[in-house]
Amino acid sequence: MSNNLLVLQSDFGLVDGAVSAMIGVALQEEPTLGIHHLTHDITPYNIFEASYRLFQTVEYWPEGTTFVSVVDPGVGSKRKSVVALTERNQYIVTPDNGTLSYLKKQVGIKAVREISEVENRRKNTEHSYTFHGRDVYAYTGAKLASGHISFEEVGPELSVADIVEMPIVETLVTTDSVKGAIDILDVRFGSLWTSISRSEFYTLNPEFGDRFEVTIYNNDMLVYQNQVIYGKSFADVRIGQPIIYINSVYCVGVAINQGSFAKAYNVSVGANWQIEFKKI
Amino acid sequence: MSNNLLVLQSDFGLVDGAVSAMIGVALQEEPTLGIHHLTHDITPYNIFEASYRLFQTVEYWPEGTTFVSVVDPGVGSKRKSVVALTERNQYIVTPDNGTLSYLKKQVGIKAVREISEVENRRKNTEHSYTFHGRDVYAYTGAKLASGHISFEEVGPELSVADIVEMPIVETLVTTDSVKGAIDILDVRFGSLWTSISRSEFYTLNPEFGDRFEVTIYNNDMLVYQNQVIYGKSFADVRIGQPIIYINSVYCVGVAINQGSFAKAYNVSVGANWQIEFKKI
Amino acid sequence: MSNNLLVLQSDFGLVDGAVSAMIGVALQEEPTLGIHHLTHDITPYNIFEASYRLFQTVEYWPEGTTFVSVVDPGVGSKRKSVVALTERNQYIVTPDNGTLSYLKKQVGIKAVREISEVENRRKNTEHSYTFHGRDVYAYTGAKLASGHISFEEVGPELSVADIVEMPIVETLVTTDSVKGAIDILDVRFGSLWTSISRSEFYTLNPEFGDRFEVTIYNNDMLVYQNQVIYGKSFADVRIGQPIIYINSVYCVGVAINQGSFAKAYNVSVGANWQIEFKKI
Repeated sequence: MSNNLLVLQSDFGLVDGAVSAMIGVALQEEPTLGIHHLTHDITPYNIFEASYRLFQTVEYWPEGTTFVSVVDPGVGSKRKSVVALTERNQYIVTPDNGTLSYLKKQVGIKAVREISEVENRRKNTEHSYTFHGRDVYAYTGAKLASGHISFEEVGPELSVADIVEMPIVETLVTTDSVKGAIDILDVRFGSLWTSISRSEFYTLNPEFGDRFEVTIYNNDMLVYQNQVIYGKSFADVRIGQPIIYINSVYCVGVAINQGSFAKAYNVSVGANWQIEFKKI
Repeated sequence: MSNNLLVLQSDFGLVDGAVSAMIGVALQEEPTLGIHHLTHDITPYNIFEASYRLFQTVEYWPEGTTFVSVVDPGVGSKRKSVVALTERNQYIVTPDNGTLSYLKKQVGIKAVREISEVENRRKNTEHSYTFHGRDVYAYTGAKLASGHISFEEVGPELSVADIVEMPIVETLVTTDSVKGAIDILDVRFGSLWTSISRSEFYTLNPEFGDRFEVTIYNNDMLVYQNQVIYGKSFADVRIGQPIIYINSVYCVGVAINQGSFAKAYNVSVGANWQIEFKKI
Repeated sequence: MSNNLLVLQSDFGLVDGAVSAMIGVALQEEPTLGIHHLTHDITPYNIFEASYRLFQTVEYWPEGTTFVSVVDPGVGSKRKSVVALTERNQYIVTPDNGTLSYLKKQVGIKAVREISEVENRRKNTEHSYTFHGRDVYAYTGAKLASGHISFEEVGPELSVADIVEMPIVETLVTTDSVKGAIDILDVRFGSLWTSISRSEFYTLNPEFGDRFEVTIYNNDMLVYQNQVIYGKSFADVRIGQPIIYINSVYCVGVAINQGSFAKAYNVSVGANWQIEFKKI
């Protein structure tokens, strides 16, 4: 069922040889693999970002694609190494440390198996305990992507209910407002991506050109409060003006046209960064 | 006529999932595509850089290669989405916002067509107005690169004369000097790449080892004035010394051997940064 | 004997079109090449890093892979352009400027040939003296990787003994201590990678959980001195605690669990950064 495509994600960066070693290991397993990258610039140890970037991306890839995601602050601890099979029939090879949270909630996971390190770890790596990305994850991902092993041969089945999950903020919907968290940034452009979905926002019956009062809190501290237009895209406001829009994952975003909202108002991300949109 | 090679350029960076989504969309259209990258580190919204990097690169790629370039500050405005066919039979998929300027002037464009969003936009993306890079450009690029559509099927033909062009600085040649602009940097090495071509510079009959007076202005402010040797390559001067040389696009460059000219003298780029080379 | 895989490394960065031009040149030679990257973020002109990253990576790639490494501060000087054949039957295409040092010492080089620029330089590049990465190295690498030329057709054989080598620090082993240099950083995580191999360290008979006195000098200046635990992997110490471990190239590393040792104590790399591990 796998399609010979392998997509790698990590917090390793591209400055040293780590990612290249992973590619080499995969091509040693199967030279015809199509190897691509999600990103290797996940903030070091940031499992939330790893989880979000997978959610943001997997749906654009073909069925049968295998993703390897290695953000693994607990390497060497008892966290499990697993492969998840999603409802859209893609494989995710990853430490079970919360990386699967978004996919489980938003896409659905049909089954999960623990990687048997007896069968699916590179030989002669028994003195290296710190590079599972290469020796376990890339190696198993390549075997699976190439069809050299089946999903069943990954290792023993685990319960989907037991997958480690991070708490994900629920949206609070009232008759005239929606409130959620700032999940992540569109890094290069400084736009805020909120946890509020398009359909949750649409309970307010917004029309393009409407204004909303946007309030941002960092814990209980007020960081920003102003009226902002809801637009189709950045060109609907003048350069330098803020805009509410629906982003490419169909959630509510807030940006400044050709500027950086995050830098302008010193806004960051995480569950303690709350954002509210209120009808005027 | 296309050759199944797709080369992507953008200002999206590689930190989030945007580029990976573009790759996935392209591989869903055609799994055998060879997908490569020009750069995704174009300064955000900088159409000039996008145009220059295409000019700098396309000639090294095979005939029939399809390039997708998405630097699109006007996403959602009335700027057109087009495909240009160059004199060297390569395709450029891009917003028509000035990105084609250098190719039109230096390589030549034979024909240009507007992308019909009815035919060549991903289905079910009608509520997302901000990611044409994925939904229009990568998608159309993949269809064209794979031969699934012909150039004619892109959409209606436009006039090459109507392509949006940025002003490009003309070189001023006198009997003992040439004067132009500092177009761009060789970023990692801090070398200045000027708008003055090798042949324009050669009206001064330079020989390796000759000295020229180099003067740099930012608007009317003098930034740098000194005598510099014209050399074959950096090794012709000592470490730390400046040199005039012919760069890899056959224009005049100015560098410091193993140093950064741009940092040393606080030089930047653009039409308001003028540089003159004068015989001594 | 080559396997159609080409792996590129340079100090060019990915911001401009240089790497893309190299890929294009290679694909013009042979469209079916599998082209991958080691890193293009080698510190500009840093031959030591280029040499180390090759050593760190090549063993994970299949036999017959061709590597092109272009860190070339002497471009245009009389340094030779060569192809080395390693004991593991991989090709390294590079300026002979020290880049081959680690591979020669740690992997072994069977033969080396000088690239004949008459045969193996792109045509019509005679007025560009600064981009051998594209015109000589990528071009020759593609010809070799694709089997269009044999190793013998690269050019005249040179003596392996004459390969330019950088001095590599030898480990000083006593009955209760080992002393070497800090070679390089695991950049993203700020871990120190020393020149001391696992087997040299094991002359001290370490067991997981043992403490060692770690002393770091910059030339003769004491920079760090403290007791540190030897662990299997980061999870063996608490977050924020230092640890001695065996890294992925089987040398001794020093890290802070989820922190940066290099930043915490302002430690850098090179032969003048000495590190000693002493039994307590």
